[in-house]
Amino acid sequence: MKFFKVPEPTIMRLSLYSRILEQMEDRGVPIISSVELGDAVGINSGVVRKDLSMFGEFGVRGVGYNVRELRDNIRKLLGQDRNWPVIIVGAGHLGSSLAAYPGFQQRGFDVVAMVDTDPEKIGTQVIERPVVSWEEAEILIKEHGVRMAILAVPVDAVQSVAQQLTDLGVEAILNFSPIILKGPSHVQVQNVDLTVYFDLMRFTQNLNTNGLRPQATTVRGIAFR
Amino acid sequence: MKFFKVPEPTIMRLSLYSRILEQMEDRGVPIISSVELGDAVGINSGVVRKDLSMFGEFGVRGVGYNVRELRDNIRKLLGQDRNWPVIIVGAGHLGSSLAAYPGFQQRGFDVVAMVDTDPEKIGTQVIERPVVSWEEAEILIKEHGVRMAILAVPVDAVQSVAQQLTDLGVEAILNFSPIILKGPSHVQVQNVDLTVYFDLMRFTQNLNTNGLRPQATTVRGIAFR
Repeated sequence: MKFFKVPEPTIMRLSLYSRILEQMEDRGVPIISSVELGDAVGINSGVVRKDLSMFGEFGVRGVGYNVRELRDNIRKLLGQDRNWPVIIVGAGHLGSSLAAYPGFQQRGFDVVAMVDTDPEKIGTQVIERPVVSWEEAEILIKEHGVRMAILAVPVDAVQSVAQQLTDLGVEAILNFSPIILKGPSHVQVQNVDLTVYFDLMRFTQNLNTNGLRPQATTVRGIAFR
Repeated sequence: MKFFKVPEPTIMRLSLYSRILEQMEDRGVPIISSVELGDAVGINSGVVRKDLSMFGEFGVRGVGYNVRELRDNIRKLLGQDRNWPVIIVGAGHLGSSLAAYPGFQQRGFDVVAMVDTDPEKIGTQVIERPVVSWEEAEILIKEHGVRMAILAVPVDAVQSVAQQLTDLGVEAILNFSPIILKGPSHVQVQNVDLTVYFDLMRFTQNLNTNGLRPQATTVRGIAFR
């Protein structure tokens, strides 16, 4: 029995590699080195090699990686090679922007419907997706075998909506509302708090204003004096 | 001269601590332990203590942290205690949802304007923010001392918009378009690729479908067999 542990940052970088490899393939580039791949993502080539070595023997030492082959392998690993039906809960600005997010469709996510409780929104379309009630959502979730949901609802609705989704058999929830959601243990919850990125950027800017200059910015750390 | 290096994940966690501490203060909680703070964020208490010890002596061993004091310290560290004027480039769905994002205002970000090139949008308002042309943006950037910009433009416009912002004196760019932007060395660029989160969630779901079950999900790694 295989047993290993993949760090979350590695999976996130695989996602970035996959994007770069797509761009390379579109440009007809056949081979890419770990240095080139690292440069494109903004990290050290050693990290690239270490990440990829976790999943098998890719690439030829001194030559590089076959772009198409590596892309195909990463796509399979991340499940990008199949179609994943998802529902978005909340048909406001955030939900709509997620439905319209470029790359969402390309990467194999199929937004089956958007769920909302606003009677004025139910029955309309947002980015060509139907906005439905919870009653209709229940039918669609079963019909399409939806297991993933994206939450873009007001903070005070997050916990109850998550419960509702869990009751309907959803197994993975991506929560974009700025509150930390805790799901039952059998449901995978990923909280995406966008203000974290603003704080991260401001942290360095704040140092600048205080007469301090950041010495270096890397994907792993910010050095300053 | 002080010289130290703060890892990016630490800064991101500080942002999460700050949110939890705000909630605690609102509920009138005076003291919080590292275990409680860790639980709320979903990490080990040792990580909490290590993160906070980088910035000074907070808390009393065996007692905990004074909620208000710690919140104030983190707010200062992250620059949340001041008002930061920002502009959002791109008045589409993504830009609008970022302007409407809850917590954005609360955390001291002041969206001065949204910039767009669409003549139909210029002169209108989005979430009570004026949509302006680049000519007007230039004036507003100088007037308000804007140093931070948020990019929510189509992928093929990212690089030229970043150049334009840099020419106007913007020092930090938060790029939400799913392409990796590289700025000049004196400009701080933070790329936020939302598809990374979808891939992260799907990675685990993909294992499930293949008959594998994730053994544990933590903020640092996913163990599976």
